[in-house]
Amino acid sequence: MKQTPYQLLEKRFERVQVLKSITHLLRWDAEVLMPPGSADHRAQQLTLLDTECTAILRSKKTSRLMQHAEASVAGLSGWQQANVREMRRHWQVANIMPKRLTNSLHRACTKAEVVWRRAHQEKNFRLLAPHLEKVVELVREKAHLLSSILSCTPYDALLDEYDPGNTTAELDFVLQRLAAELPGIIQHAIEKQSAFPPIEIHTPISKRKQKDLGRFLMKRMGFQFNKGRLDESLHPFTEGTAEDLRITSMFSEHDFMSGLMGILHETGHAMYDFGLPAEWFFQPVGRDRGMVVHECQALLLEMAVGRSRAFMRFSAPCVQKIFGVNGKAWEADNLYRLATRVHPGFIRMDADEVTYPLHILIRYELEKKIVAGNLRVRDLPAAWNERFKQLFGEFPPDAAQGCLQDSHWPQGYFGYFPTYALGVIMAAQLFASIRQAQPGVMDEIAEGNFAALFNWLEANIYRHGARYSRTELLRQATGETLNPARYLDYLREKYLEEN
Amino acid sequence: MKQTPYQLLEKRFERVQVLKSITHLLRWDAEVLMPPGSADHRAQQLTLLDTECTAILRSKKTSRLMQHAEASVAGLSGWQQANVREMRRHWQVANIMPKRLTNSLHRACTKAEVVWRRAHQEKNFRLLAPHLEKVVELVREKAHLLSSILSCTPYDALLDEYDPGNTTAELDFVLQRLAAELPGIIQHAIEKQSAFPPIEIHTPISKRKQKDLGRFLMKRMGFQFNKGRLDESLHPFTEGTAEDLRITSMFSEHDFMSGLMGILHETGHAMYDFGLPAEWFFQPVGRDRGMVVHECQALLLEMAVGRSRAFMRFSAPCVQKIFGVNGKAWEADNLYRLATRVHPGFIRMDADEVTYPLHILIRYELEKKIVAGNLRVRDLPAAWNERFKQLFGEFPPDAAQGCLQDSHWPQGYFGYFPTYALGVIMAAQLFASIRQAQPGVMDEIAEGNFAALFNWLEANIYRHGARYSRTELLRQATGETLNPARYLDYLREKYLEEN
Repeated sequence: MKQTPYQLLEKRFERVQVLKSITHLLRWDAEVLMPPGSADHRAQQLTLLDTECTAILRSKKTSRLMQHAEASVAGLSGWQQANVREMRRHWQVANIMPKRLTNSLHRACTKAEVVWRRAHQEKNFRLLAPHLEKVVELVREKAHLLSSILSCTPYDALLDEYDPGNTTAELDFVLQRLAAELPGIIQHAIEKQSAFPPIEIHTPISKRKQKDLGRFLMKRMGFQFNKGRLDESLHPFTEGTAEDLRITSMFSEHDFMSGLMGILHETGHAMYDFGLPAEWFFQPVGRDRGMVVHECQALLLEMAVGRSRAFMRFSAPCVQKIFGVNGKAWEADNLYRLATRVHPGFIRMDADEVTYPLHILIRYELEKKIVAGNLRVRDLPAAWNERFKQLFGEFPPDAAQGCLQDSHWPQGYFGYFPTYALGVIMAAQLFASIRQAQPGVMDEIAEGNFAALFNWLEANIYRHGARYSRTELLRQATGETLNPARYLDYLREKYLEEN
Repeated sequence: MKQTPYQLLEKRFERVQVLKSITHLLRWDAEVLMPPGSADHRAQQLTLLDTECTAILRSKKTSRLMQHAEASVAGLSGWQQANVREMRRHWQVANIMPKRLTNSLHRACTKAEVVWRRAHQEKNFRLLAPHLEKVVELVREKAHLLSSILSCTPYDALLDEYDPGNTTAELDFVLQRLAAELPGIIQHAIEKQSAFPPIEIHTPISKRKQKDLGRFLMKRMGFQFNKGRLDESLHPFTEGTAEDLRITSMFSEHDFMSGLMGILHETGHAMYDFGLPAEWFFQPVGRDRGMVVHECQALLLEMAVGRSRAFMRFSAPCVQKIFGVNGKAWEADNLYRLATRVHPGFIRMDADEVTYPLHILIRYELEKKIVAGNLRVRDLPAAWNERFKQLFGEFPPDAAQGCLQDSHWPQGYFGYFPTYALGVIMAAQLFASIRQAQPGVMDEIAEGNFAALFNWLEANIYRHGARYSRTELLRQATGETLNPARYLDYLREKYLEEN
């Protein structure tokens, strides 16, 4: 039987998906165990795979099939229609950007990232400035191109790439609310916590034991080791698909809590990927619904679940047994205090869950201005320090603890930072709905039973893949759109009211 | 400036080479650390990469460019001309086989290999027979197709795939000579060795220490860890290219010698890959000169160098230090006796360097008959046992120690076994030439200095890539063609004359 344009399109996107799954493995390998001298060759391999994907999406045949499939979309199922919509998104990204711009941007970012490492080490923004200027110039060109197709502002076009449908309007509404209320919450939380400071833990814990604990907890949460792994790398990350999913964490013998929280964060990402609709595995509609939803899953597991009294009640005995330790410092109550300590600082990556969004706010405001052409790269350090002082009360002591601390901008990721803040807020909303729908969920977690939690997420988030917009997905799951009030309620309950 | 057909062809083959380098990593990962449930998805990834390579080679554009380049070959350099010849080889393999046949063969082999594992475990050839029959049927179809293009017999066409230019005529000449002389050498060697049996070693050695020893020796030999790794797998193998080369060995706590010899064998493969001409890295002419030359490099390092008194003089103190052992059993003389013990047995993989070629002889005779249609699959076990009895004096006790012991045939590798035997012979010839050209080479190795050895190999073998035929390469390096007499001389000197 002759295949329909839609069916032929599905085959092409299946090839793209398999090629992308290969890039996941190549990237994982590069971070975890590739010999250092193989980096250039690895870049060549990744570039070729990217070129092959783009070639499929840019071919005339694909464009013709897209048009035919869209013309007869009425005869397709709901999932198929959503798939055509997502195909169009992928098609647009591959087709709008001229090859010249893609290549220039890739080269500029590769160079800027290398220079950033040195600039960061030497705390010298001037080293990076000319390279970052080049990146910004090309990102702005890309943003203008995308904005003309998507009929939105250039910065909104960048936001859309990481979180489809995300807009400055929504972000301004959400983040201004946080900017107004968080400083007060932070101050009160610090005062409250100062009455019961946690016992510091200085016992060194071997990496092997930390990994054993991680694997034990991951198994309890349902991580499928038959199709996944836990390894070590410089920064925690998740790479792969439900067919081969690999998470990493960093392990420091003197700070097991960071490694553990890294594992929970990445396990949140992994459970989402494992739970995506298997029957749509190879299709765009079967992928995740963007980076806000993905970060939301990670933060929900790390922050709301992992940094909870219930989770610590379950995990403290496991920690004691696997690490071979005991005493008051290792009891659930103290581990909870350690994991929820509010401590404003200069570094985003070390921030607690209350101060975290303020770090994002700074980056959001500045990158919006940069993309709009209202802030020059050379003026970035002064603008950063000024705004940091307003929000945190202090100037960063140097650029490495200021605007040089993240590699996102040198890597060209403008529009990415806001996904962290929206992820935090969405996580609080989901957490409220889960507790309402499954009132016993935290008691079960205290007993090491995560079924209620993940069943709810599976039914309300995971299995929908990219079928709905992020806003619609959230509405169906919680009955409301993005709402910072839930997050503020969650913080108040956890940090100001509870004992 | 407009590019010539030859230059455009080079670009296409560069893409093929990068895609192939990705398959190396995927295969390495599958054997070393892939989660077990990801096997089907990995097969899908490998199939897609293979399809992409074949599509490049089967495109009309490539065929046209091939013709144009061949028409103007006179204007090219010697290397370029050789490259065009090798391109044609790759092009032929991709273009002769109809897709249907490639796919059927791939499916049949995948299935037969799975069944082989069970049949091997249950020592039951009947389980495998129908699946092996299917494989044989398709291999014969492939052989006939290839033979019509190459103008040779079907079996010679299969030989050519693994070792370009290899023929039954040469193999018959070589192997008949070995069949006539080896049994006598084996008998004398056993008698001679029985007067000085080695001290058995039963001390368990941790895998970590065995890897430490392996890495130490590899570094001394010049293995570039900046672009390579050593890991553990079920069977030793080498995968990758000079840009990212990964070898594995198997490590048993009660048999460090197997693991060490595995490392030397794979390091021999690796040094060849590292030494191939870098300026031709992406082109067919820059690859190795087939499996005989590759096995020759591995066997030269494992057998002639590794199982020598000189190597044991150097490595015994390293072994003692890294393993933390001492005593007579760990001295050079005893390690040498252990590594050179002649012990006829049923299993090829466990064979010593003297009996090894007889194992190959059996397989060569039988597979030649199978491909010619003169031996039915169902009659294979009887034919195997009969021939084994003639050569070794005993019947194998069961099929797992008989014709079920290797996975090559179920995997469709007919014509591959002979490369092992020719590799052994070529290694003896190279070894004789090295010792003649560099009379101090073994004394230097006894001091841990491998420069003379590898410099000679680099100059005479590695750097030529696939520029010359295997026969011409050997002739340039040693002044003669394949000559079993050198191998027999080598064995007589080592096993019958030396003390």
